Amino acid sequence: MTIRATVWGENVHETSNQIVSEIYPEGMHAQIAKQLAVDKNIVARTATLQQPEHGLTHEVLAETDVLLWWGHAAHGEVADEIVERVTNRVWQGMGLIVLHSGHFSKIFKRLMGTPCALKWREAGERERIFVVNPGHAIAAGLPEYFELENEEMYGEPFSVPEPMETVFISWFQGGEVFRSGLTYRRGRGNIFYFQPGHETYPTYYDETIGKVLRNAVNWAFNPQAVSSDPSDAPNVPVEEALEAIEERGPKLHKKGEKGLR
Amino acid sequence: MTIRATVWGENVHETSNQIVSEIYPEGMHAQIAKQLAVDKNIVARTATLQQPEHGLTHEVLAETDVLLWWGHAAHGEVADEIVERVTNRVWQGMGLIVLHSGHFSKIFKRLMGTPCALKWREAGERERIFVVNPGHAIAAGLPEYFELENEEMYGEPFSVPEPMETVFISWFQGGEVFRSGLTYRRGRGNIFYFQPGHETYPTYYDETIGKVLRNAVNWAFNPQAVSSDPSDAPNVPVEEALEAIEERGPKLHKKGEKGLR
Amino acid sequence: MTIRATVWGENVHETSNQIVSEIYPEGMHAQIAKQLAVDKNIVARTATLQQPEHGLTHEVLAETDVLLWWGHAAHGEVADEIVERVTNRVWQGMGLIVLHSGHFSKIFKRLMGTPCALKWREAGERERIFVVNPGHAIAAGLPEYFELENEEMYGEPFSVPEPMETVFISWFQGGEVFRSGLTYRRGRGNIFYFQPGHETYPTYYDETIGKVLRNAVNWAFNPQAVSSDPSDAPNVPVEEALEAIEERGPKLHKKGEKGLR
Amino acid sequence: MTIRATVWGENVHETSNQIVSEIYPEGMHAQIAKQLAVDKNIVARTATLQQPEHGLTHEVLAETDVLLWWGHAAHGEVADEIVERVTNRVWQGMGLIVLHSGHFSKIFKRLMGTPCALKWREAGERERIFVVNPGHAIAAGLPEYFELENEEMYGEPFSVPEPMETVFISWFQGGEVFRSGLTYRRGRGNIFYFQPGHETYPTYYDETIGKVLRNAVNWAFNPQAVSSDPSDAPNVPVEEALEAIEERGPKLHKKGEKGLR
Repeated sequence: MTIRATVWGENVHETSNQIVSEIYPEGMHAQIAKQLAVDKNIVARTATLQQPEHGLTHEVLAETDVLLWWGHAAHGEVADEIVERVTNRVWQGMGLIVLHSGHFSKIFKRLMGTPCALKWREAGERERIFVVNPGHAIAAGLPEYFELENEEMYGEPFSVPEPMETVFISWFQGGEVFRSGLTYRRGRGNIFYFQPGHETYPTYYDETIGKVLRNAVNWAFNPQAVSSDPSDAPNVPVEEALEAIEERGPKLHKKGEKGLR
Repeated sequence: MTIRATVWGENVHETSNQIVSEIYPEGMHAQIAKQLAVDKNIVARTATLQQPEHGLTHEVLAETDVLLWWGHAAHGEVADEIVERVTNRVWQGMGLIVLHSGHFSKIFKRLMGTPCALKWREAGERERIFVVNPGHAIAAGLPEYFELENEEMYGEPFSVPEPMETVFISWFQGGEVFRSGLTYRRGRGNIFYFQPGHETYPTYYDETIGKVLRNAVNWAFNPQAVSSDPSDAPNVPVEEALEAIEERGPKLHKKGEKGLR
Repeated sequence: MTIRATVWGENVHETSNQIVSEIYPEGMHAQIAKQLAVDKNIVARTATLQQPEHGLTHEVLAETDVLLWWGHAAHGEVADEIVERVTNRVWQGMGLIVLHSGHFSKIFKRLMGTPCALKWREAGERERIFVVNPGHAIAAGLPEYFELENEEMYGEPFSVPEPMETVFISWFQGGEVFRSGLTYRRGRGNIFYFQPGHETYPTYYDETIGKVLRNAVNWAFNPQAVSSDPSDAPNVPVEEALEAIEERGPKLHKKGEKGLR
Repeated sequence: MTIRATVWGENVHETSNQIVSEIYPEGMHAQIAKQLAVDKNIVARTATLQQPEHGLTHEVLAETDVLLWWGHAAHGEVADEIVERVTNRVWQGMGLIVLHSGHFSKIFKRLMGTPCALKWREAGERERIFVVNPGHAIAAGLPEYFELENEEMYGEPFSVPEPMETVFISWFQGGEVFRSGLTYRRGRGNIFYFQPGHETYPTYYDETIGKVLRNAVNWAFNPQAVSSDPSDAPNVPVEEALEAIEERGPKLHKKGEKGLR
C-alpha cells in the first residue's frame, strides 16, 4: 500500500540566509521529499509556511498518512488553528515525524505537554548516532552507529515525556549526549522525534539519514487511521447499558442531554 | 516535611444545583480538603473558579506542593493564562491530581496532549475499583478492591497517553471497565488521574477514597521542585564545551545570540 | 511476505479429558492454526509437548517467525533446555504470543521476570473484552468490545511488568476485571499476552478471537530478526576506539582476553 | 524510618588481584556500605559470596529493605537457589540496586528476562554522566552532569527491557554512549541499574557516586513490602463471586481443587 507523506518546511532560512540557500536551493522540504521518494512505497509532497493555511488544508491533511515537520525561525508564525487541525489529524491516526529544531514547534509541544527544551551549540562538531534498540523498525538496515561530521549539538536534559521507546542516542564531540530518536503515541498517531538536521549542514543529503526517514515514515503509518472526531465523548443511555441495570440516585443530566465540556 | 496541598474546586454545581449543594454545602473542594487534613503531614487550602485569578495567583502556586483539580461545568471559563501558569508550575515540580470530570479540564488536556475522551452514563450504578499495582505508593493500605455503590460510569476507550503506571482499573455494574487510576510525569511534576467523584453522589465522604487522595498527595509531592524556567534552552558556547573542540563549518547564529523559538 | 507461525500446544487435556477432546478433537493447537490460516499471509504449523524436543527443534525455531503458546496442565514437563532455546529465539526476534493459562508457562515467566500470578474462577461466566487502544495493530478491524458468553475468569492483580501498551481490558460477569491483552518487547522479540482460551469452552472457534490472533501474528512478526548470539558482549579494543584515546590506569584484563560472565 | 540496606559483594578480585586489593583493602562492599552510612536514615550491612548461603539467608533477606549487588568474576558461582530466594524477595518489595558488572549477574538477568549484554573497553577513559531526568528522586541534589576521570567503557546497545524511566546517560571519551541509570519495577520491588564501578578504579570513593547510591536506596525502599507468596494464584469460588453468578458450562476443576501450574 502506498504511503502518502507530506513534508512541511518552514522555508525561511532557505530564502533569507545565503549559506542555507546554497545547500538547499529548492528548500529543505524538497530535499527531504527526495529522500523519501527513494522508497517506491512512499509518495511525498511538500507544504510550506508561506502557502495559504501553511499548505495544510483539510484536504491535504485528509490525504496525508505521515507528516514530517521541519521548522526553526518561525514557530510563532504558525497559526494556532492549523496547529489544532494537525493535532486532531494526529489523534485520528496520521503519523508525525518531528525533525531537529522542530522540538520547539507548536505542534510538538502541543502533543508532548512538556517544555521540549534542551541545550545547544552550533559548532559543526561530530555527532555519532547509536542504535540502542536494534530490533525497532526505524533501525532496520542501519549499522550499530553512524556519524555526521558536522552537526549542531543538542544536549540533555531534553524535557520530553518518557518515550514509548528510545531508538537512538547521540554522542557529541564536545562532550554531551542526547536522546536523538524517540517514539510516542498520541491517540492513533505514531510520533517520532529525530534530532539531526541543522540547516547550515548538508544533513538531509546523507544516505543513512535518508534511510532513517524512510523507515520512520513506514513505522509511523497507521492503516487504522479514522476520520471521526477523537474528542467525542458519547453518553451510553441506561436502556442501552451492556448489562441490564436500573437507574438509581440523583441525576445532574436530563435524559439525552449532552455531556459538559 | 509538611506537604502544602491546594484543592481547586469549580464550585458551580454546589451553588446552582440543589442535589449537589445538599451533599456538599461547603463545596466539594472543602470536603476534599477535609479528607486531606486527616493526614497530619498535609496542610490543605482551597481555591475556586470565582476568586480573582481563580484563586491561583503566582503566590498561591509558589506555595503549593500538590494541586488537586475538580471541574465539570465550567472548564471553558478557566482563563488560558492561568492554565499556562499551572502548566509551568507542574513542569517545575508541583504535583497535580486530576479528579473525575477533570479529565476534560484545560489543564489535563494541556499536559496529556490527547483528547482525554471517554464514554459515560449517569445511572448511579455500582463501581468496583481494583488495585492492579499493589506495591504502588498510591495503593498503600488499600484492600484488593473497594466499592462505591453509586458512581457515574466512565468507560473505555479513555484517550490518554499510555501511563507510566496503571494503579486502578474499575468494573461497572452496567458492563464497562475503566482505567481509573493512572500516573504520569511531565517535567518534574508527578500527575495522577483518579476517576471517582461525580457531584451527585457522596463519593468524597468515603473513607477509602480519602485514603487514596492522601496517598496520592504524598506520592505526587516532589521535594525537587524548582522555581527556574523549565522552557529555558541555554546555548553552550564553544569555549565552554565540556571537551575542547574547534568551531567548524558555517553558522546561523552570531556569538552570544539567543536561540530561536 | 509470508509469516511462518508455529502453534505450540500442550495437548494434554485434549487426550485425557472428555469435554476438551469433544470440543477440540484434533487438539487446540490444530484449531488455532486453522484460525491463522484464514490470513493468506500466514503459514501455520503445529508442535506439541509429546514430540521429540517438544517439536521445537533448532530447525523448527529457525523457520518460525512467530510462536504461539498454549499450555496448562504440564508446564513443569517442558524441558528447561527448550525454554532457554525459545528464549534465545525470542531475543533474536521471533514473536511470541502467549495464550490464556500460558501465563504460568516457564517461557512467559522467564521473559517477564515476575510471578505472572492472578485470580481465577471456572464458572463459565460472561467476559466482555474492551479495546482500550483502538489504534493498535492488534485491534485492527475489531469492534469497541466483544463478548465471550463462557470464559474462565482471570482477575487482577496480574503480576506482570507494566506493559509497553495495554490493548484489551476485560469485564467479567462475576465482578472482576483483567488486563487481557498486553504487549512487551524482549530483545528483538515482540510479545503479546492474550487472556481468553479456557479449554472447556469453544473460544478458539470464535471469529473475533481468530481475528485477534491473526492481527497479533502480523504485529509480532519482526522482519529484523537475526541469528547471531544476543548474549554476545564484545570487547572494543583501545586501538579500535571510535575516538582516539590512550589507555590509562590499572587493568584487570589482558589484551584480547574475553570478558567475565 | 530507618532503611535496612545489605551490600552484597562478590569479594573475589579484592583478595586475588593486587590492584583491586590495594584500592579496596576491606572489599568493595565495605566501601559501598560506608558511602551509604553517610545517610543517617540508612543502616547498611554487608554479605559476600563466600559466606554460608552467600550471606543471604532467609533471615538476612527478611531484614533487608534494599539489596545492593556487585559481582563480576563469579556470577556462575552464585547458587540458583539463592537467586530464586532473592528474586522472590524483590517481588515481595525488597529494593534491588545492581551495580556495574552486575549487569551479567544471575539475579539481574532473572528479573529482566533479557540478555543484558553490552560493549566494553577497559582503558581508564573519562566518563561523563548526564542527568536526563532531573526531577527523579535518584537525581536529588546532583549537578547537571558529573565526571569520573577513569572508568570502564560500557557501550550500547544494552539489551535490557525499555525502562520505567531513564535517569542517567553516559558519554565516554572513546566515543560511545550508555544508558547508565535505569529504573524498573518487578512485583513490588523497585530496581535500579547503575553503570559506574569498575574494580580497578576508586569509583566508590567518589562523593557524587556516594550520593547517587544513597538516593537510590531511598528511592528503592518500598514500605509496602510484604512477606506473603507473590506466586499465589487463588481460586475465587463461585459462592464468593463479587457479583452473584450461577455456574455454567463444563468444568475442568473439581470444587476446591487447586489450580494447575
